[in-house]
Amino acid sequence: MGYPAAVESLIEQLRRLPGIGRRGAERLVTHLLEAPPAQTQELIAALGTLGERVRNCERCGSWCESQNCRLCDNEHRANGRLCVVERPTDLYAFEESGAFDGRYHVLGGTISPLGGVMPDDLNIESLLKRIGEESIQEVILALSPTVEGDATAHYIAQLLVPMGVSVMRIGLGLPLGASLGYADPGTLKLALEGRRRMQG
Amino acid sequence: MGYPAAVESLIEQLRRLPGIGRRGAERLVTHLLEAPPAQTQELIAALGTLGERVRNCERCGSWCESQNCRLCDNEHRANGRLCVVERPTDLYAFEESGAFDGRYHVLGGTISPLGGVMPDDLNIESLLKRIGEESIQEVILALSPTVEGDATAHYIAQLLVPMGVSVMRIGLGLPLGASLGYADPGTLKLALEGRRRMQG
Repeated sequence: MGYPAAVESLIEQLRRLPGIGRRGAERLVTHLLEAPPAQTQELIAALGTLGERVRNCERCGSWCESQNCRLCDNEHRANGRLCVVERPTDLYAFEESGAFDGRYHVLGGTISPLGGVMPDDLNIESLLKRIGEESIQEVILALSPTVEGDATAHYIAQLLVPMGVSVMRIGLGLPLGASLGYADPGTLKLALEGRRRMQG
Repeated sequence: MGYPAAVESLIEQLRRLPGIGRRGAERLVTHLLEAPPAQTQELIAALGTLGERVRNCERCGSWCESQNCRLCDNEHRANGRLCVVERPTDLYAFEESGAFDGRYHVLGGTISPLGGVMPDDLNIESLLKRIGEESIQEVILALSPTVEGDATAHYIAQLLVPMGVSVMRIGLGLPLGASLGYADPGTLKLALEGRRRMQG
């Protein structure tokens, strides 16, 4: 005997979301049916507003509620340097660190022939356009250290270096607070390759 | 700089759900904004239908879309034996095992004074009513082996034993396929206490 149709249908919808399996979906349904009905209504309203209001910034591709995002509209940001990330969430993660005061460009993913993502599916054309329009001198590729991230970084470098742009990739190695004994061999290799001279 | 208001608002709503933290909520929002808009619409529809259609069975407290659940309406189930569970999902888990052919009763949780759940908040009164009405001879308490589950089991046993009902608790011990070396001391203690004689 299965769940009532309405329960089964919501479980199916929830399972399409990343990180939610069958048991997790069942737990969410249990929670929603035990919580005050207002909670489900607020969730429904927030989901509806997301689709209506949020779009991609015409310049950088990040999330915004108007034509351009608040970061592109901000006149106090340094020009000439562009940090290229995969997703809007990566941009906000860098902003939280406070380590970058330039401009961003959101690709929308990485090149992945197996996953059906080709260069044309990413915001690469708009990136090339910005190089000239905004006189960008340095592009920092902040892409994941994965096969897809590596391939995408090389693809973009190939396009930008001939344009006279300094193309950099963010540092790869041990994360802060990591224990060397628990690091995987790939990370240790990257950390060795990325070694820097210390000032005595 | 924070996310656009509509993004932040949905992240807040998602974080109220069990098992979803800030990073998980950000990942869900990224997924919803990259997926076809129809997916969000289908999720919204399923959430709306859940609240409209699903209610608690008037007899056993499980989920149903009419007055009584399909299990209570099923005339082929054995009467006289009642399996008491915490949540509707527990009931369906037992049904998947195919190990029980009697009737169920869903408490809706466990007694937890610290969590603000008192006996009156659970479907205990309706359980007592069913004992007489359905001439129940045996009640199997399938409650979690936690402090709250233990307390709830003892509370219910105290009420039912004087009514002449045989009150049982499901077996506690090592789960199928478990490795003894990884079991915690509490489980090993339960397993020893629950030892059964083997037929030679």
